Amino acid sequence: MNTVFVHASRSYEVKIGCGLLKTLGQELRKIAGGKVLIVTDENVAPLYLSEAYHSLQGAGFSVSTTSLPAGEGSKDIKYYVNLLNLLCEKNFTRSDTLIALGGGVVGDLTGFVAASYLRGIRFVQIPTTLLAMVDSSIGGKTAVNLKSGKNQVGAFHQPALVLCDIDLLSSLPPREFLCGCAEVIKTAILFDRRVFAHLQANGTDFDRTYVITRCIECKRDVVCEDEFDTGRRQLLNLGHTVAHAIEKLTDYIIPHGEAVAIGCAIFARAFASDAEQIEQLFSQFSLPLTTEFSAPTLANAALSDKKRLGDSITLVVPHCVGNCSLRTYSVEELEDIIKAGL
Amino acid sequence: MNTVFVHASRSYEVKIGCGLLKTLGQELRKIAGGKVLIVTDENVAPLYLSEAYHSLQGAGFSVSTTSLPAGEGSKDIKYYVNLLNLLCEKNFTRSDTLIALGGGVVGDLTGFVAASYLRGIRFVQIPTTLLAMVDSSIGGKTAVNLKSGKNQVGAFHQPALVLCDIDLLSSLPPREFLCGCAEVIKTAILFDRRVFAHLQANGTDFDRTYVITRCIECKRDVVCEDEFDTGRRQLLNLGHTVAHAIEKLTDYIIPHGEAVAIGCAIFARAFASDAEQIEQLFSQFSLPLTTEFSAPTLANAALSDKKRLGDSITLVVPHCVGNCSLRTYSVEELEDIIKAGL
Repeated sequence: MNTVFVHASRSYEVKIGCGLLKTLGQELRKIAGGKVLIVTDENVAPLYLSEAYHSLQGAGFSVSTTSLPAGEGSKDIKYYVNLLNLLCEKNFTRSDTLIALGGGVVGDLTGFVAASYLRGIRFVQIPTTLLAMVDSSIGGKTAVNLKSGKNQVGAFHQPALVLCDIDLLSSLPPREFLCGCAEVIKTAILFDRRVFAHLQANGTDFDRTYVITRCIECKRDVVCEDEFDTGRRQLLNLGHTVAHAIEKLTDYIIPHGEAVAIGCAIFARAFASDAEQIEQLFSQFSLPLTTEFSAPTLANAALSDKKRLGDSITLVVPHCVGNCSLRTYSVEELEDIIKAGL
Repeated sequence: MNTVFVHASRSYEVKIGCGLLKTLGQELRKIAGGKVLIVTDENVAPLYLSEAYHSLQGAGFSVSTTSLPAGEGSKDIKYYVNLLNLLCEKNFTRSDTLIALGGGVVGDLTGFVAASYLRGIRFVQIPTTLLAMVDSSIGGKTAVNLKSGKNQVGAFHQPALVLCDIDLLSSLPPREFLCGCAEVIKTAILFDRRVFAHLQANGTDFDRTYVITRCIECKRDVVCEDEFDTGRRQLLNLGHTVAHAIEKLTDYIIPHGEAVAIGCAIFARAFASDAEQIEQLFSQFSLPLTTEFSAPTLANAALSDKKRLGDSITLVVPHCVGNCSLRTYSVEELEDIIKAGL
């Protein structure tokens, strides 16, 4: 088992390894007492809820649970309000704890509830997808969706503990696992040539604990430097400008990971000296590299994104694996860049 | 005009004086551009919205406005969701600004919208009540109500600017003005014997700019020391344990300021060496000093409050004017303390 220490506005540990779910109760006991509410979804509940429940109960917590419909629809602000009312009914106080047992949807929603209920209570992340392990459960960004936009409402709120139990990945549908790999590859392109080489050498048989730990450490380093996302943290958006455009244009039918792979591939072709290697690695993980949408269509959709500030846009430019940087372009230049990489 | 500088997680200025509303546009221009949305209520709109609107428009802002029903009902989470959707429809970005033009309800609601929309955008407080000037507009506590409890959801989010225009107080109904005076007196008891003496000498004719400035400075000092309300900031709850109980028991028919006066008077009689002077000053401002509820009833209602942590409760003990401290009591002792002060 590995432990990554995160020293953001709140300090906490991320544990990565096998068999961690059954240690939840004893781990939480080290930092909290009182009541807990486990938030999960209908896919995860039959698989892992019982183990989480009994671990917590065995450690002396008063445990209740709630299960949401699986999928992005549960990240709606309606479920946020429902969860708040549930906490209120159960008389949750500032000494109690929320547990997010699930993927990014459950983690982001539960995190925002924890961020705002009584102006902030403790929460624990138990990511059940690769994407959530390497990305959404680290860094304290929480959010829900409004009708008119994804992640439009949220808060920065660090978890008190993150348990990445590698065993939970075995139940992940293959396509979802590969989508998580897209963010892993993105992280390798940004920060770590060794992980990139390890992925090249091992494909989908990569060493789970090693690679996930490195991804978390890389994200931790950026997040601690720029917790509130005003500078360097934007590096994590490599490939995301185009990815968000594709997701929006397909009404989110194309999964986030696949959109990120396409976005990274386009920017690699436009900028990177080793674009071929990058394309090859995404292909090795059966991830797509191209889109049917034209450069003007993608550019327009990208520019309605919230990350735009006035007439310029900040993009993550991959020079080569392990060397990427933030560059500001005028809004007009974006279309040409995409065209160069299509 | 006085300026108070607040150096919390964000630094900002609070300006106190006459004729400030018409300077809103030029003041905001110093720190922001882009779009603004003024949030106000139906009582305030006919009085001051036009002046705010034209000041902002004159300074080159693209201005829109929205008006809520007057009263605590608008602090419901339903209005929070409505406002978020409105910002989304208007394509508000992180460079745009919300303006809260109103009392505590408008300020708390608008503040929480600003805290969470895109994980935080800028907002400006223009308090139109005495209570909001000396209390809710300073310190960054924002919140909305759930069905089952007041201020159950919110965030810490500091404003970018606060303008306390003394002229706006002239339209305040007398009872509401006196309720604001209850918090002013509370602040004087906590921190400032000179303000206490000034109020004794001048009654309701007190020097507005001087007294409001001092109240804001006192609150600023506590808030900067303990922005996230884990220690010394709890001093500001003088009288509030009983006040919240009374509000809850009367279903919020008794105004907050009157409940605070009663709460302070009970604790003064229970603890303070100069209780008579404290009672006298509240009386001078036509504020009530007693309640019909019994000690057990008040204690029970108080203990369901969110400020309770397990089996103990932290109370603000007034030893005498200008000298109060935090003391932790067992839950059982509360009833005796209230009984001693009834």
